[in-house]
Amino acid sequence: MAQFLTVKSPEEVLEIIQGFPPLEAEEVPLEEASGRVLAEPLAAPEPIPSFPRAVMDGFAVRARDTFGASESLPGFLEIGGEVVMGRAAEAEVKPGTAVAIPTGGMLPPGADAVVMVEHTQWVDEKAIEVNRAVAPGENLLQEGEDIPRGGEALPAGHLIRPQDVGVPAALGIPSVLVHRRPKVAILSTGDEIVPVTTRPLPPGKIRDINAYTLAAQTKRAGGLPSPGLLIQDDLESLTRACRQALEEHDVVLLSGGSSVGARDYTARILEGLPGSRMLVQGVAIRPGKPTILGRVGGKGFWGLPGHPASALMVFTAFVRPFLMRLQGRRKMPQVEENRRRAVLARNLPSVSGREDYFPVVLTLEEKTLKATPLFGKSAMISLLARAHGYVVIPARVEGLDEGTEVEVRLFSGG
Amino acid sequence: MAQFLTVKSPEEVLEIIQGFPPLEAEEVPLEEASGRVLAEPLAAPEPIPSFPRAVMDGFAVRARDTFGASESLPGFLEIGGEVVMGRAAEAEVKPGTAVAIPTGGMLPPGADAVVMVEHTQWVDEKAIEVNRAVAPGENLLQEGEDIPRGGEALPAGHLIRPQDVGVPAALGIPSVLVHRRPKVAILSTGDEIVPVTTRPLPPGKIRDINAYTLAAQTKRAGGLPSPGLLIQDDLESLTRACRQALEEHDVVLLSGGSSVGARDYTARILEGLPGSRMLVQGVAIRPGKPTILGRVGGKGFWGLPGHPASALMVFTAFVRPFLMRLQGRRKMPQVEENRRRAVLARNLPSVSGREDYFPVVLTLEEKTLKATPLFGKSAMISLLARAHGYVVIPARVEGLDEGTEVEVRLFSGG
Repeated sequence: MAQFLTVKSPEEVLEIIQGFPPLEAEEVPLEEASGRVLAEPLAAPEPIPSFPRAVMDGFAVRARDTFGASESLPGFLEIGGEVVMGRAAEAEVKPGTAVAIPTGGMLPPGADAVVMVEHTQWVDEKAIEVNRAVAPGENLLQEGEDIPRGGEALPAGHLIRPQDVGVPAALGIPSVLVHRRPKVAILSTGDEIVPVTTRPLPPGKIRDINAYTLAAQTKRAGGLPSPGLLIQDDLESLTRACRQALEEHDVVLLSGGSSVGARDYTARILEGLPGSRMLVQGVAIRPGKPTILGRVGGKGFWGLPGHPASALMVFTAFVRPFLMRLQGRRKMPQVEENRRRAVLARNLPSVSGREDYFPVVLTLEEKTLKATPLFGKSAMISLLARAHGYVVIPARVEGLDEGTEVEVRLFSGG
Repeated sequence: MAQFLTVKSPEEVLEIIQGFPPLEAEEVPLEEASGRVLAEPLAAPEPIPSFPRAVMDGFAVRARDTFGASESLPGFLEIGGEVVMGRAAEAEVKPGTAVAIPTGGMLPPGADAVVMVEHTQWVDEKAIEVNRAVAPGENLLQEGEDIPRGGEALPAGHLIRPQDVGVPAALGIPSVLVHRRPKVAILSTGDEIVPVTTRPLPPGKIRDINAYTLAAQTKRAGGLPSPGLLIQDDLESLTRACRQALEEHDVVLLSGGSSVGARDYTARILEGLPGSRMLVQGVAIRPGKPTILGRVGGKGFWGLPGHPASALMVFTAFVRPFLMRLQGRRKMPQVEENRRRAVLARNLPSVSGREDYFPVVLTLEEKTLKATPLFGKSAMISLLARAHGYVVIPARVEGLDEGTEVEVRLFSGG
């Protein structure tokens, strides 16, 4: 294990995360596919639509029969029948005839376009006038125009959103191959920490907040958290707990014990685990500098700050993308992040050489979105319950002035 | 039941939704609280922190003992002991003395401030020099400074996000009172619709996509969807199915059968249900004009367009806020919506008098976010799988030019 590691930049940490391979694939029914990531491209076993389909109410025609038709010089077509919704089209469209067709109806043989009902007029019950010409293919979907047969309907690595479930459903595919969700162990340590159920609180103690906030964040990021465990703050107990947790989980999150002194402690736990490798020991961000990432076999070991607010920021910035990576997600495209542009309501001081994360409250003042930084002591839990998101000040920038336009990254909802 | 209803504006529909009361409250353990909405304010049974706490490593002092201390004229303090993390502070800070304290340690009696370790220097093992003055309260959290005893830690109607779970956890509250999740029945109808498992697809038929996309969207919005049911397209079967669904659910979503002709059909189903009231019959949007909202007893009955793309837009615009309302959410604050500013890559045509919803793909081109509208036939399912979000053109605007800055509302992730 390398003994002298320098503090990494956030970009370096995100690169290192991409070095972990996605977890193996599993088959899930379509009802459970939303929120999962495709492990293989979804191929179309049949074309969508599987027959040429009208997309407007009107008349199926041969386009050439309408050429030159206009309001002043309408064309004349005889009615050759009617397409019934949900049935094979039977009546053929012969030259000089039209067949009535509803939206979604199957185009009858002989036809190559649909005239909208708005552009026709009944002459009698057996004939219509057409007052606008249509081009071949107009107002219809060709067979396979939506998804061609054998085509890639969705790529591997695609995060399936609710609407995307419609693609396999349309193709008649009742289950999909997705990457497994990571099992995540959440361990806390620290002499001052007691279980949440402890009441009254003994003097000098605080409750194990991270056990709950990290579990909720893990769930939100698609992981499967085990109930939090509070481990006695000594090297032997911690090493034993981490070793056992790694046997049953894909990821271990150990929070607390990563302040200045205890940081080497977390590093020593990692050292004590067979097949371990230290990948990150310190990140140039505030809060969250003492963050640790190690690899044990193929599994991930994170040392997170003990302060809930700091642990939250580190989770948001790194652990969440890490869990998404294990689920097969490629690097989150920047266009898909939830960001709002807002105007800073206060000066934000910052030190060059590290990225600073400031939680902010958003307010709408006369159509201008304002971001007010929540200065406060990072130990305050109420602070994060008020924040809508956070502003990142890049390492090369020394603070931002009131009135500057900034990008606020929104915390994900419940 | 009113016979002549006019098409409503989207704002009117959102107002009508607020007329539905939230569902009753239920107790859930903290592990399941994220994503739920508080049914009552969360009161603090004890202060947070429950004792004055250092937020920096350093020395607990009487602030007045440091007055005037500077680099050139440091103050001198004798060491009177040490605070041990997680234990009650015992050593009293007497005038002229200091007690070593770690971040998070309990402030000892007599002290009213903490000097950061960086601003001190050891003289010998029993005394330090202080080279910076501190004010009373500096570098510590007072008892109740984060959350005062008896204070409202979180308001009723608050959507609990992962980090917000930390507030009850800190207070030792193991379960919270939240509104029940709505049970949602998803019914589809239409002569052309067949179950998703049908293969091969008979000519003229398409699969029941909405059963899956509406269920996934319902889940994402916090609802509990029952497996989708495909109902025969006649008034009697539909009325019977809707009546039964309303007995077992809080909400019925009936899709299909709301195109021009079949729209009165859905209205007649609603009429046939005892205690029903038509609230919305048509909305001035595209797609989604034939949308219907009725109230049956205290329950909600939605008639949605059959086209999956149209049903998705109506769900996003109205059904999702409706389900959030039933869960106790007040109107979604505009600042919490996920929106990105982008530049239109094409002209967008629109008709004045209705809101138009255009799905768009986002791309990042030289730091400029571009929104490319996906023109296409709204029946195309692949279209929505490519879209990142959508642009709304207000009713009073007649189209937007290429290059206009627009707000893109992002579809929620998986």
